[in-house]
Amino acid sequence: MNEELLLKELQNAIQAAEEAKFLVNNIWLLVATVLVFIMHLGFATLEAGFVQRKNVVNILFKNVMIISIGLLTYYFVGFNLMYPNPEIYEGGFFGFGGFFLNPPDNGMTAAYKSGHFTYWTEFIFQGMFAATCCTIVSGAVAERIKLIPFLIFCTLFVTISYPITGMWAWGKGWLDTSGFHDFAGSTLVHSVGGWGALAGVILLGARNGKYTERGIRAIPAHSLPLTCIGVFMLWFGWFGFNGGSVLSADPGLVSLVFVNTSLSAAAGAMGACLSSFVKYRSFDLSMVLNGILGGLVGITASADGVEPLSAVAIGLIAGIIIPISITTFDRLKIDDPVGALSVHLVCGIWGTLAVAIFGNYNNGIGSFTAQITGIAAIGTFTFIFCFLVFFILRSTIGIRVSEREEAIGLDIGEHQLIAYSQGHQ
Amino acid sequence: MNEELLLKELQNAIQAAEEAKFLVNNIWLLVATVLVFIMHLGFATLEAGFVQRKNVVNILFKNVMIISIGLLTYYFVGFNLMYPNPEIYEGGFFGFGGFFLNPPDNGMTAAYKSGHFTYWTEFIFQGMFAATCCTIVSGAVAERIKLIPFLIFCTLFVTISYPITGMWAWGKGWLDTSGFHDFAGSTLVHSVGGWGALAGVILLGARNGKYTERGIRAIPAHSLPLTCIGVFMLWFGWFGFNGGSVLSADPGLVSLVFVNTSLSAAAGAMGACLSSFVKYRSFDLSMVLNGILGGLVGITASADGVEPLSAVAIGLIAGIIIPISITTFDRLKIDDPVGALSVHLVCGIWGTLAVAIFGNYNNGIGSFTAQITGIAAIGTFTFIFCFLVFFILRSTIGIRVSEREEAIGLDIGEHQLIAYSQGHQ
Amino acid sequence: MNEELLLKELQNAIQAAEEAKFLVNNIWLLVATVLVFIMHLGFATLEAGFVQRKNVVNILFKNVMIISIGLLTYYFVGFNLMYPNPEIYEGGFFGFGGFFLNPPDNGMTAAYKSGHFTYWTEFIFQGMFAATCCTIVSGAVAERIKLIPFLIFCTLFVTISYPITGMWAWGKGWLDTSGFHDFAGSTLVHSVGGWGALAGVILLGARNGKYTERGIRAIPAHSLPLTCIGVFMLWFGWFGFNGGSVLSADPGLVSLVFVNTSLSAAAGAMGACLSSFVKYRSFDLSMVLNGILGGLVGITASADGVEPLSAVAIGLIAGIIIPISITTFDRLKIDDPVGALSVHLVCGIWGTLAVAIFGNYNNGIGSFTAQITGIAAIGTFTFIFCFLVFFILRSTIGIRVSEREEAIGLDIGEHQLIAYSQGHQ
Repeated sequence: MNEELLLKELQNAIQAAEEAKFLVNNIWLLVATVLVFIMHLGFATLEAGFVQRKNVVNILFKNVMIISIGLLTYYFVGFNLMYPNPEIYEGGFFGFGGFFLNPPDNGMTAAYKSGHFTYWTEFIFQGMFAATCCTIVSGAVAERIKLIPFLIFCTLFVTISYPITGMWAWGKGWLDTSGFHDFAGSTLVHSVGGWGALAGVILLGARNGKYTERGIRAIPAHSLPLTCIGVFMLWFGWFGFNGGSVLSADPGLVSLVFVNTSLSAAAGAMGACLSSFVKYRSFDLSMVLNGILGGLVGITASADGVEPLSAVAIGLIAGIIIPISITTFDRLKIDDPVGALSVHLVCGIWGTLAVAIFGNYNNGIGSFTAQITGIAAIGTFTFIFCFLVFFILRSTIGIRVSEREEAIGLDIGEHQLIAYSQGHQ
Repeated sequence: MNEELLLKELQNAIQAAEEAKFLVNNIWLLVATVLVFIMHLGFATLEAGFVQRKNVVNILFKNVMIISIGLLTYYFVGFNLMYPNPEIYEGGFFGFGGFFLNPPDNGMTAAYKSGHFTYWTEFIFQGMFAATCCTIVSGAVAERIKLIPFLIFCTLFVTISYPITGMWAWGKGWLDTSGFHDFAGSTLVHSVGGWGALAGVILLGARNGKYTERGIRAIPAHSLPLTCIGVFMLWFGWFGFNGGSVLSADPGLVSLVFVNTSLSAAAGAMGACLSSFVKYRSFDLSMVLNGILGGLVGITASADGVEPLSAVAIGLIAGIIIPISITTFDRLKIDDPVGALSVHLVCGIWGTLAVAIFGNYNNGIGSFTAQITGIAAIGTFTFIFCFLVFFILRSTIGIRVSEREEAIGLDIGEHQLIAYSQGHQ
Repeated sequence: MNEELLLKELQNAIQAAEEAKFLVNNIWLLVATVLVFIMHLGFATLEAGFVQRKNVVNILFKNVMIISIGLLTYYFVGFNLMYPNPEIYEGGFFGFGGFFLNPPDNGMTAAYKSGHFTYWTEFIFQGMFAATCCTIVSGAVAERIKLIPFLIFCTLFVTISYPITGMWAWGKGWLDTSGFHDFAGSTLVHSVGGWGALAGVILLGARNGKYTERGIRAIPAHSLPLTCIGVFMLWFGWFGFNGGSVLSADPGLVSLVFVNTSLSAAAGAMGACLSSFVKYRSFDLSMVLNGILGGLVGITASADGVEPLSAVAIGLIAGIIIPISITTFDRLKIDDPVGALSVHLVCGIWGTLAVAIFGNYNNGIGSFTAQITGIAAIGTFTFIFCFLVFFILRSTIGIRVSEREEAIGLDIGEHQLIAYSQGHQ
């Protein structure tokens, strides 16, 4: 047999194996994309369950629009703001790769991207993340924000603010090169959403009747089954959120991420259960559900680089924090109907710091200095951006519905609909 | 080292790589199968949410039976009607490969099918599609059709009509060889369901009290959260519906399909939001939800062969159409409680035509002539078939519940159950 | 070209192909893990829908805690009880591999496990199964059990009992070497849960007012849409439960398992529909939903080794059994609010026996003797264990809520919450 022929065959064999790996990596990212997508149903039902019956249509409408606006703007602008050409913008604060998508020459059957997945895959996976930051705000400002200014805020937040800070850490920007480690977005997604929520809540004020002279009035969730569906859907989707953030189907890493994510969520439930029992002598389902979310947010920064026992510790502490944080915000008269600030902002910060405590990273990656720098820089930028946007909106078209509309509910006020009609019985 | 041995080893290496690709392709199709399956939950909750509280058990019962009947009949007959032996029936109008399944000789560990997936995988993926056409009818004829004749109709529709027209385009029948392109079923699945729905609605008539002398009475959805869960579940499942229709894990193609599917759905929401706002000065959640579905149905025929910007256009137009179409059907006194005709029939036709407008196919594939031929041929066959079946049922056992049963609701009338019992509080 | 170099390249090619297969196998197991996880949402909504409105928070709380406790205890102890070192414990009744996880030397990027998946993957896949047995108990003892003793029972059940009997058949224990075949757990998971449920129900007694002098009072489900969501989610997750139990992405086997699982579920629906129509002259949605679950439980032991037509038969019989079994338990005054005993215990036993009737296994695997031995041994151990635990709990802290608490509901009694608040309308 001819040696040249043999060599060519050999190269074919190696290439075929590489192609097979490419197929797996790409399909895993796409499956992860589907999982992250369904988190939007998770947020929609979580928030819809927590609000009052008269504001359910409004919260669902917002969540449906958020994912739609998020995907479209990320396609038009966001993706190229977050992942501009690293050859030009590496280490920078801002970059832009042009409008729309610019797939490599071979078009649809796009070339390998770091040998792992196609350009389209990268876009759609990251696109599903983008809208998440707005969804977090949605819950915190629920039951009193006007629809149009909220949608304007969302559009600006997801089009400009999220991709810029995202580029700092994930798009080869200055934080990425500084040692800051945020695996799947405890800071870049969750606390970013949390800061936006905080800005909104401060400028909007509390719901009428929440903080009275006679104390804080509990406004109960209108449907805990809906909320519970939401939390399970979020946990479900988080396997894609964290597992997909490995950006390949690396067996050891993806499976470790699954283990850490699950154990932290489970420990979050236990932590919140214990903490709320100690505090209120009651088994509070809402707290336990938020404890799971706290555990999930907490592990998101470090799921790729901690031992499972550390994941348990991270989740347990996140869960313990939740009831304390929720009570504290209430004492400060910062009214957050769904606990989004405690889950996403507080546990997002906790998770980012946990990288420095529990992380097994080398070369100074994830040091306390790096983590605090990242939290502070991203937090400052995001909070100022969101505060300004909400402030301008408040000074112009207004951001709060009328007292009457708040009383009758936003479903009638903004949508002329009710969530649960009795029909014609 | 021996040359012969080397060559054998080399062949082993290439075969191992091919096997790995086979594994990925097959697993992706199976994951897509799971996603298409859950669309049946999507339809069930979408329709249950849209109907009145007194007809919820009935609509759930129908959806549960549809997927069950669909799978079983597809196993007994349908699969071999839709994919008969192409060597015999290529280019034909009808073929039959015998009852039950006939896997290749090596049985369970079935041989490659076009090098991509097993015989079982092909069956179960296609089987999940089959029942969908009945589900579409289910929503349109809700709140007034008798259970038994509806189940008889479904059985005949999914056993005979759907596989025959399916064979024309996907089973190497005459439409397949004529240049008609319907990637994942804008026509073959969605408008087919729509034509069946139209036949049923015409023969059944409107719900009592819907069209009165004083005008059209809105019969509001009994639970918009349920409907919203349905739409998210359908979008979620559509990643499998469209993504799986690539019939392999081809990285470029599957990821492009994901991008197009998502952007079209998002643009559908925007289109319906704008269109309904212009029309009614209201932010109508039902319209936006149906807009998403319209965008999904619209992109289904061409998700594999349009640019993302075209996908945005296709979805946007589909979304704009939705409120107009829904109003038009109402003016024509064609009563469709869930908007199934607008979503599946109208947007299904639109999506099939969009192939000719936006598609990047070669060799005359997807020309206007080919697309219109396909729409007309499949529509005519399906409408006549369904009309005849419903007509015969109406002339014999009757298809409409009594006025009294309609008034008290089909849950009591057909099932002696109510959906939401107060229990013993 | 150098022969030595050529040989090395060749080895690289083969290794690359093997790695690609490893990637697919591992990712499939992880996707299956995600699917099994969401079954916990399925159980939560199924059970929540079936109970009365006043006990919804309680059942959701229990389900949220069960998955959390299950994962944590499986991590601390369970996994190493169920899969101890087979070199030491093969063929035995009990083994223990130490506390926590002990991944192989190369840590995170764990070595191949039988060439198929990582250590972390194995743990998390099995961990998702573990909690299921408690969830089954949860439904049967609903509406009257005290929270704390129930959680204590769950902890002991999932930490000790489930892994020990699991080890007998799946951890190379004595049943595994005896020819007992239970593919994905008709006995090991479902009837184990069922025996626990039976022990609980017997010691707990029926709900007040269920069995009166004037006969059996039906206590209707408070939300059939919730129950229906639950059943679809369970079917959805079962693709991972059964499909993942192949423990690789073997194309022929996984796809056959998908076909068998789906056909059996569909036939279960038909069987229950016919059986309940014959019995009650009514189309009972609850029965059909439980029929699907019966079909799924029934096929679980043999989905890897029966013909599709046998799967139809297994499911059909399971579905026919359901209404008969539910009525029989009611006549025996064994009060099971969700039908868990009929679905998981009765159909679990039926499915395990069906292996001997329909299975295509060799070498005496799955013989009647082997199957009956397994059912009896595991059933006896589990029932005695659970009976003792419940008995001790009853004799000490008590397991039943007060009559007053049962009357006002466990949501107020145990949680000071209501599931559906009217808010401030």
